[in-house]
Amino acid sequence: MRRKELSPSAVRAFQEIMGQAGVFTSLEDRICYSFDATTYSSVPGVVLRPSSAEQVSRILAVSSQEGLPVVPRGAGTGFAGSAIPLEGSVALSFERMNRILDFSPDDRHCVVEPGVVNGLLQKHVGKKGLFFPPDPSSLDVSTLGGNVAQSASGPRALRYGSTKDYVTSLDLVAGDGQLWHVSEKSGGYDLLSLLVGSEGTLGILTAIGLRLVPVPSSWNTFMAYFRSLEQASVAVAELSSQGIIPTVLEAMDHVTLRCVEEFLGRQPSSGVGAVLFVEVTGSETEVKVLSEKLELTFSKLEQIRFESAVSEAERERLWTLRRSVSPALARVAPTKINEDVCVPRSKLPALVRAIEALAERHGLDIYTFGHIGDGNLHVNIMTDVRKKKEMERVEQCADELFEATWLLGGTITGEHGIGIAKRKYLPREVGRVGMRMFGEVKRAFDEANILNPGKVVPSEPAHGAGGAV
Amino acid sequence: MRRKELSPSAVRAFQEIMGQAGVFTSLEDRICYSFDATTYSSVPGVVLRPSSAEQVSRILAVSSQEGLPVVPRGAGTGFAGSAIPLEGSVALSFERMNRILDFSPDDRHCVVEPGVVNGLLQKHVGKKGLFFPPDPSSLDVSTLGGNVAQSASGPRALRYGSTKDYVTSLDLVAGDGQLWHVSEKSGGYDLLSLLVGSEGTLGILTAIGLRLVPVPSSWNTFMAYFRSLEQASVAVAELSSQGIIPTVLEAMDHVTLRCVEEFLGRQPSSGVGAVLFVEVTGSETEVKVLSEKLELTFSKLEQIRFESAVSEAERERLWTLRRSVSPALARVAPTKINEDVCVPRSKLPALVRAIEALAERHGLDIYTFGHIGDGNLHVNIMTDVRKKKEMERVEQCADELFEATWLLGGTITGEHGIGIAKRKYLPREVGRVGMRMFGEVKRAFDEANILNPGKVVPSEPAHGAGGAV
Repeated sequence: MRRKELSPSAVRAFQEIMGQAGVFTSLEDRICYSFDATTYSSVPGVVLRPSSAEQVSRILAVSSQEGLPVVPRGAGTGFAGSAIPLEGSVALSFERMNRILDFSPDDRHCVVEPGVVNGLLQKHVGKKGLFFPPDPSSLDVSTLGGNVAQSASGPRALRYGSTKDYVTSLDLVAGDGQLWHVSEKSGGYDLLSLLVGSEGTLGILTAIGLRLVPVPSSWNTFMAYFRSLEQASVAVAELSSQGIIPTVLEAMDHVTLRCVEEFLGRQPSSGVGAVLFVEVTGSETEVKVLSEKLELTFSKLEQIRFESAVSEAERERLWTLRRSVSPALARVAPTKINEDVCVPRSKLPALVRAIEALAERHGLDIYTFGHIGDGNLHVNIMTDVRKKKEMERVEQCADELFEATWLLGGTITGEHGIGIAKRKYLPREVGRVGMRMFGEVKRAFDEANILNPGKVVPSEPAHGAGGAV
Repeated sequence: MRRKELSPSAVRAFQEIMGQAGVFTSLEDRICYSFDATTYSSVPGVVLRPSSAEQVSRILAVSSQEGLPVVPRGAGTGFAGSAIPLEGSVALSFERMNRILDFSPDDRHCVVEPGVVNGLLQKHVGKKGLFFPPDPSSLDVSTLGGNVAQSASGPRALRYGSTKDYVTSLDLVAGDGQLWHVSEKSGGYDLLSLLVGSEGTLGILTAIGLRLVPVPSSWNTFMAYFRSLEQASVAVAELSSQGIIPTVLEAMDHVTLRCVEEFLGRQPSSGVGAVLFVEVTGSETEVKVLSEKLELTFSKLEQIRFESAVSEAERERLWTLRRSVSPALARVAPTKINEDVCVPRSKLPALVRAIEALAERHGLDIYTFGHIGDGNLHVNIMTDVRKKKEMERVEQCADELFEATWLLGGTITGEHGIGIAKRKYLPREVGRVGMRMFGEVKRAFDEANILNPGKVVPSEPAHGAGGAV
């Protein structure tokens, strides 16, 4: 199908579906939906704000007839450009589909619309002693639709896994507008696992079933201070080899730590090269047993000291430190290039050495933190997109970081997805036949190539003479 | 592509690839590969026994050129007919690809060929204190290739999940013979989850990466005796609502129990309507805490008595009882129709009542046992395929059992897959759009429709004028 420009008749059709309030056509409004948390942006041709699955279905029916690409978006907090409405496409915002459709505390289950904010769901189900484990740092704004599209995780992923492990069903709209339901309770191919994390390229979500988990009765939260990130990474590898898995095991290097302490107006920790932020949760006995094992292991390693939270207020104080990393780093430089590499835990010390050597060699400021317990580090290169020469070094540095990651048996996308940011590296990770299969799968679900085209897999030249994305 | 008959030149090509010993052409040999654990059978046109991925690749290259359907098989213990070589197709047996290619105890990981028997892997990795959690009752004979193809589980699935949760990578051969590698460590679409459990219809396995788990240091194994299966199911629903999850929680109704006791020459338990077989594992403290919770819950319910294993020998005695269910039931009647229904745990009492009413109404002998902790019951209708009238009642009874299961929000295939046995019921579970997507996915991976055609999704009339399967 030849891709067409957005026609006045298509806009009228959308207005008929949703009323005037559901359709933004002014440039000012459209610009608000042009970006995400990357450096990419592209102004959509129109912004649609449906309020029901039926409206989404009708939107897709019109879009597929007109050959208009549709780009779903939640809060636009993604780090891979998955929600960027390339080439003036239709931005489909779920801000008005934000209802909790069902909550069954006894079954530990809820059904939500895609626009529900993660943090609001947590508050709602928290009243019944339950929580939804995935906790991306963006949880106060990011939506569950976006969380499902990216299979978001967060600090608690070490113990609880990612969004994929909690989705029990999806209601979707196919590329041609047909409504569709996929459940973990039905036989045949596991399309549910395929759809979670597919970045809106295989179907548009309209409802999400989620498994919930009881809030553990007990906790122990502490910081361990090390002379260097490498020594902290040795500690993580050691814990892993002993099979000691806390709920949360996060790292910050010293520049990140100092930056966050400054941001929060706290006293800087002097002489510290890195910290590990650790939380153990469970029954009182479980927490006691695991804490003892952790302390024993740490005491044998070269850490500087321990700081354990003894009250809920102190626990919150430590969590605030961890959660403030992203806003604190945002102030450091005009542009933050956030890479998301992940290696086997035993390879963490080698990865940390490689990162430090790269910063040195390319003369770049790198702030490293992240879900070290998962082997997943966020490597933030601080720069300024306007400095062309420096950006070339940044690109070279990122390429070398990825080479090192692959060499260590890792992936260049621990949790942030592919979108457009990592698209060019994907063939290296999945191989030629893998890319062919990705293309076939994309075609299987979206023959007209209108569902978030160009994300994850490249658009084919055959589609959209208006320009491959 | 038009499906052709097996030609002498194809047989010669296969012999060139594998030598005479790799190719069985005699009827006697072929009959040995014609069946599985269902009542279906179909004699393959030829049996191929490759010994390397490269040979599998060359076999597929020949088969796709000739339009010959290829049906992979492990030990033929499946309950869905997935390994039945329909229409004289090529039976691809992995009995010679049975090597453990890599075992890294420190990484708790191994890589195996598909023909490795589950139980032999357990023995091998057990020497290093590790195990592979999926434990189908067939584990002493069934192969890991078959386990992956069906995403097999077993009694331990309650705590540990199914095969899907342990596969880290797959080496595959695509329908056209191309070699291909899929890993959980690479970005993009989650094809790994899609391929596990796809019953050999999307690609042919040649190597499997598996995550292993440390053997827990402590255990507590016991039987709880109840007046009826319904009362046992109430106990399970109660445990579940309290969030008490043992490692193993299995049920047997009284006819199954008596049958197994007889089979093992043990004293029959009198006045018992059903038993729950329970095992708790973990650290000493974990086992103690969980056992206390279990005992407290059971003591409030209407169970008759408890029998706890105090030695490894007694534990083995209880496990032998559980593992002997299948061989014991095999002696009851000429034909055992084994249904595999699964409902939310809170709906178990209703399911049990429905099963009992069905047995009564249709005048059939039904033996019920299974992974009740997962909500998964194996409903065995004892009959004789030669009795035509009775078989009609059996079919009617199965249909009504499935209706009841769907009504309770469950699935008719808890762990045994679709194959050909459940194919006709699949549209009811996944819907019209779901079936269309299954068809599209099948085509995406296997356009020529030669990979185990007709299993999971029906073959299309367009393929194989020689007859749709």
